[in-house]
Amino acid sequence: MVTMRDVADRAGVSIATVSFVVNGTKPVAADTRTRIEQAMADLGFRRNAVARALASRRTHILAMAYPALDHDLSSSALEFFTSAAATAARLDHHLVLWPVSNDAAELKELIGEGLVDGVLLMEVQLDDPRVAVLEAARMPFALIGRTADPTPYVHVDIDFDATIREAVAHLHELGHRRLVLVSGDRSDPGMIDYGPYVRSEAAFQATAEAYGLEPTILRSGTTAAAGRELAGRLAHDHPDVTAVMIMREYASLGLVSELRRTGRDIPGDISVLPLVASRELPSLSDPALTIMRSPGPELGRLGVESLITLVAGGSVPPPQLIPCRLEIASSTAPPPES
Amino acid sequence: MVTMRDVADRAGVSIATVSFVVNGTKPVAADTRTRIEQAMADLGFRRNAVARALASRRTHILAMAYPALDHDLSSSALEFFTSAAATAARLDHHLVLWPVSNDAAELKELIGEGLVDGVLLMEVQLDDPRVAVLEAARMPFALIGRTADPTPYVHVDIDFDATIREAVAHLHELGHRRLVLVSGDRSDPGMIDYGPYVRSEAAFQATAEAYGLEPTILRSGTTAAAGRELAGRLAHDHPDVTAVMIMREYASLGLVSELRRTGRDIPGDISVLPLVASRELPSLSDPALTIMRSPGPELGRLGVESLITLVAGGSVPPPQLIPCRLEIASSTAPPPES
Repeated sequence: MVTMRDVADRAGVSIATVSFVVNGTKPVAADTRTRIEQAMADLGFRRNAVARALASRRTHILAMAYPALDHDLSSSALEFFTSAAATAARLDHHLVLWPVSNDAAELKELIGEGLVDGVLLMEVQLDDPRVAVLEAARMPFALIGRTADPTPYVHVDIDFDATIREAVAHLHELGHRRLVLVSGDRSDPGMIDYGPYVRSEAAFQATAEAYGLEPTILRSGTTAAAGRELAGRLAHDHPDVTAVMIMREYASLGLVSELRRTGRDIPGDISVLPLVASRELPSLSDPALTIMRSPGPELGRLGVESLITLVAGGSVPPPQLIPCRLEIASSTAPPPES
Repeated sequence: MVTMRDVADRAGVSIATVSFVVNGTKPVAADTRTRIEQAMADLGFRRNAVARALASRRTHILAMAYPALDHDLSSSALEFFTSAAATAARLDHHLVLWPVSNDAAELKELIGEGLVDGVLLMEVQLDDPRVAVLEAARMPFALIGRTADPTPYVHVDIDFDATIREAVAHLHELGHRRLVLVSGDRSDPGMIDYGPYVRSEAAFQATAEAYGLEPTILRSGTTAAAGRELAGRLAHDHPDVTAVMIMREYASLGLVSELRRTGRDIPGDISVLPLVASRELPSLSDPALTIMRSPGPELGRLGVESLITLVAGGSVPPPQLIPCRLEIASSTAPPPES
């Protein structure tokens, strides 16, 4: 059986360095890593997961907890997952998706089984019952999102303040003065204080005030049908609105389709700017959508890197906030002449 | 500590019946199940997963293996997953999503860890290397999909023959004689003999022959951009085509958007009929799309039920093939007068 010592000898490095690569516990310079991986390949060294787990009391399995049964996984949520899973694989871990509900009971049951080394929490609420469960179990965890005060926790998140500021600035520069933010329906018990909605609404209030605009906030379900219904509400209750920022992708597609069906020109009559949008969204619609592009791929990567550092007992990684980026296509333009 | 005997006494049933409910090993009549669950709640009986796993040598965790890093999870794939996860939860199991690649190496590593009781395979290829790995490991598994000869394996799948027959019949009844099937790009090594593409193409050949039609088959990538590119190919190479059946959701949205952008009326000039479509697809587009609705929710449920039966050592569940159902909206109509 080939050992780590054999690999270290062949690659001309220390056993510790081989271990860092094998166990993904510390970053190793790219050329050294390549040399070690080549030596492993040459010698037929196989990482034995069970032996490794026994030796280290670690399974090298991480779980992303997402309440997928309570509400559908969106395309933008999937971007977080696929990036996180790819990063975990690169760092010699496996990431699985746990569709456990937001209320922590199932999470408690699952982490009690000792199968995972750490947990990434998605869809974080301001007061999230899952955090207490993870703390009580001494299970390493990182948030993709933020509780009301996330200071004690390892977390990465979208910078909603900067995102809303850039979105409003884009529309304001085009000449829009009557803007609407469409946030999410918070009647679902698990979403009452869902961070992204709360933070975006607060950021819009503050930004609108700074521009001397009246901040109109509507809420909508996440489905295309909800977006279609929203088009009716806009026409009926807010006929003077010339630009809509909207947080949910399927709802934005429903909104655009229904606006077109009822004879509104986009962007001639009304500009539509989806927020936290995945890569595919712009091309799914005609006109192609101007979006605030989600940093999901970056945050998925950073979340896993932070979690693995934490699991390995490294120094606590600092929080990371990344804004969405404006990507201009064809759904925003100056408002019609009044 | 409350035992299963205490629960059985209070509910007035045998310990075996309590065990069927606790371990999800056999179906129990709804009213009996309710009585047992009430007794468990009254007595504060907690299913202890670790103790249960030790006692039964089972973890009650199932994995759905999906090559999510090789190609994006589609909305219709997610319907399989969420339904399967909900069914697993109802039967007192947990289902996790494993984003392992199609080539079986990672799968081998993961099942070697002994963490799961069974595996559901998604994105099955006609000659799928993962099957041999699962057989060699004596790991119970079920396919959502089919290998070239799936007879030896527990499997559920879409009935592509019946799906294509109903789709062609719908378009033929409307008067279409020049139909195209858009299947998937098979240049990706993991998709060369991907069952749904191969079976749909064969079914279309056979159905077209029965109707005396010329079967044109095009292939497209899965993205919206690929769908847009397809619109150009259709106009240039197949200007006489009046109806398109298309297998990938994002590609279908890109196709519809680009056809509209270039002045083609849907369904006036050309009918578009997405196959294997998820619930949300019709409302994402204007006009609302006529679809062949994916049986993903049913197949996710049946796949998990079959797998749990297999894990529990029950009799081998029979294969289940379910066709997509036609749901008529506004993207199909008679062809233009020639």
